[in-house]
Amino acid sequence: MSKREAATENQINDALNDLPGWSLVDGKLQKTYKFNSFAAALGWMVSAGVEADKMNHHPEWSNVYNRVTVTLVTHDLGNVVSTLDLTLAKKMEALA
Amino acid sequence: MSKREAATENQINDALNDLPGWSLVDGKLQKTYKFNSFAAALGWMVSAGVEADKMNHHPEWSNVYNRVTVTLVTHDLGNVVSTLDLTLAKKMEALA
Amino acid sequence: MSKREAATENQINDALNDLPGWSLVDGKLQKTYKFNSFAAALGWMVSAGVEADKMNHHPEWSNVYNRVTVTLVTHDLGNVVSTLDLTLAKKMEALA
Amino acid sequence: MSKREAATENQINDALNDLPGWSLVDGKLQKTYKFNSFAAALGWMVSAGVEADKMNHHPEWSNVYNRVTVTLVTHDLGNVVSTLDLTLAKKMEALA
Repeated sequence: MSKREAATENQINDALNDLPGWSLVDGKLQKTYKFNSFAAALGWMVSAGVEADKMNHHPEWSNVYNRVTVTLVTHDLGNVVSTLDLTLAKKMEALA
Repeated sequence: MSKREAATENQINDALNDLPGWSLVDGKLQKTYKFNSFAAALGWMVSAGVEADKMNHHPEWSNVYNRVTVTLVTHDLGNVVSTLDLTLAKKMEALA
Repeated sequence: MSKREAATENQINDALNDLPGWSLVDGKLQKTYKFNSFAAALGWMVSAGVEADKMNHHPEWSNVYNRVTVTLVTHDLGNVVSTLDLTLAKKMEALA
Repeated sequence: MSKREAATENQINDALNDLPGWSLVDGKLQKTYKFNSFAAALGWMVSAGVEADKMNHHPEWSNVYNRVTVTLVTHDLGNVVSTLDLTLAKKMEALA
């Protein structure tokens, strides 16, 4: 599941079934997380960031106060959703 | 609850009832947390650290892999457990 | 310098002289930081985030890999740059 | 330099020449870092932690306020200083 290759439509749809709150927006995987506090949001970014860096696959994400919006896409495959994006989204869910 | 004053034995015992895994060790409040991963441990330290710094009350803590051992005591009151320590322990529990 | 009030044009211009890389973009204070690695970028976000939360004044910021774009504005004063924004920008510079 | 094997005395001594403040304590590599603030200490732990987790080689470290004491040793080689410890110490220095 974590090779760097484009995900099929079926793989994406299957994954989205297990990824509450995630959706495809302009061909990218996206979710806005809302935490109880800025402290909780920043701590989650650190946990997720450690995992992302270990995959050498980094999110585009923005934060204001207790919200974090994450956008996942694989640039070096031509801005498609890849199996790496699906894996990272699942890790992010597990840590949230 | 968050003034900087020594906690009474009653206050400490009441608080410990709501603080699973915490105990008094050598007159200090202590718990060892075990997380699912190093990533989760580090993220929690960040969340708890943000809250601690806002209280201007910092833990003594150590980490190896997925474990974090926290020791709370108030130095400027003569190394006693204070109401600040109880407040910080509760915040740490809420974030864990 | 850290009351929550609109900054005058003079205060903003004076502050920008000491804030290399920061500029006004659509009436907000903005800078894109580039670090040596994702690890360094995330660590800086944590340092700056701790300071921001202590001021109860939070940045809008986004990260991709080793870049962090920060936007500072004070919402509850009608989206103007305030003295708090100038203070936070200076803290961010000191930590970078 | 980053294979998991015991470092020779020569390798350790050579490395210590480039690692100011680090020394051997009870056969382990150790340094106490002092930062300008708790915020800076915590941010550095995050940067160093991201790198450590990517190496799958984790420090023993403790923090109080602006100080972080790091101890590096390789458990699965029988608690000796390994080339991994030297590599991690160098990364920590570069991030401090």
